[in-house]
Amino acid sequence: MITAIDHLGIAVKSLDEAVPLYENALGLKCLGREEVASQKVRTAFFDAGGVHLELLEPTSPESPIAKFLTDRGEGIHHIAFRSDNIEGQLKQAADAGVRLIHEKPFDGAAGKLVAFLHPKSTRGVLTEFCMPKPGATAAH
Amino acid sequence: MITAIDHLGIAVKSLDEAVPLYENALGLKCLGREEVASQKVRTAFFDAGGVHLELLEPTSPESPIAKFLTDRGEGIHHIAFRSDNIEGQLKQAADAGVRLIHEKPFDGAAGKLVAFLHPKSTRGVLTEFCMPKPGATAAH
Repeated sequence: MITAIDHLGIAVKSLDEAVPLYENALGLKCLGREEVASQKVRTAFFDAGGVHLELLEPTSPESPIAKFLTDRGEGIHHIAFRSDNIEGQLKQAADAGVRLIHEKPFDGAAGKLVAFLHPKSTRGVLTEFCMPKPGATAAH
Repeated sequence: MITAIDHLGIAVKSLDEAVPLYENALGLKCLGREEVASQKVRTAFFDAGGVHLELLEPTSPESPIAKFLTDRGEGIHHIAFRSDNIEGQLKQAADAGVRLIHEKPFDGAAGKLVAFLHPKSTRGVLTEFCMPKPGATAAH
């Protein structure tokens, strides 16, 4: 079951230009930065009432975010829904005819299991499911 | 101050095609539908952990959503941040150099005051501020 919107991914050309916008114009506080080598991105995180905004800057022209910036420009890249059962969530989507980018969840940032649905079968919305890993949940 | 993400606006060609996707593939419950004549849209609402997803179908070729669909196709249209002081929120954004679509908040759906920032000055993200109207707040 989907329990929350975990975060929104926002593609930006430059964290150094985008972070001050969110801090100064919106008054949000940057909680930290992290490089995710597997996705070839650098991220900066903000919190808005429990939902994270995740600014994503590509670190390589081969990053999926670089491709998105070339195709569509800066903007909202994906919605990540938190699920209490990511395998079941993927099965439900597949059973409803949605094309999965990842058949099985894999290790994402911040101790989470993640998987994406293909935007061609979710009406243009790149959709992520994520779930804290059982070990990570038990630790909190 | 921004206190929450109030809702996400998602542009779709057809509610009748998109609603079953959110219901069947994601398992979310449609809370209702509403026509917003001033924006020339029909909307269907879902809740995901306190954040509403607002599917937006144009009712006229002159709807801003029709233009978005032509230019970019279906997908995430805007982020709406809830503020506890929408006038102050707009002033903070303007003072930081952001171009406002609306200098003053106006009456939106569901008893809220709303105003939008221009996506050209928010790095491609059409950004809405909203606030329950003082009377509406007192009534709850």
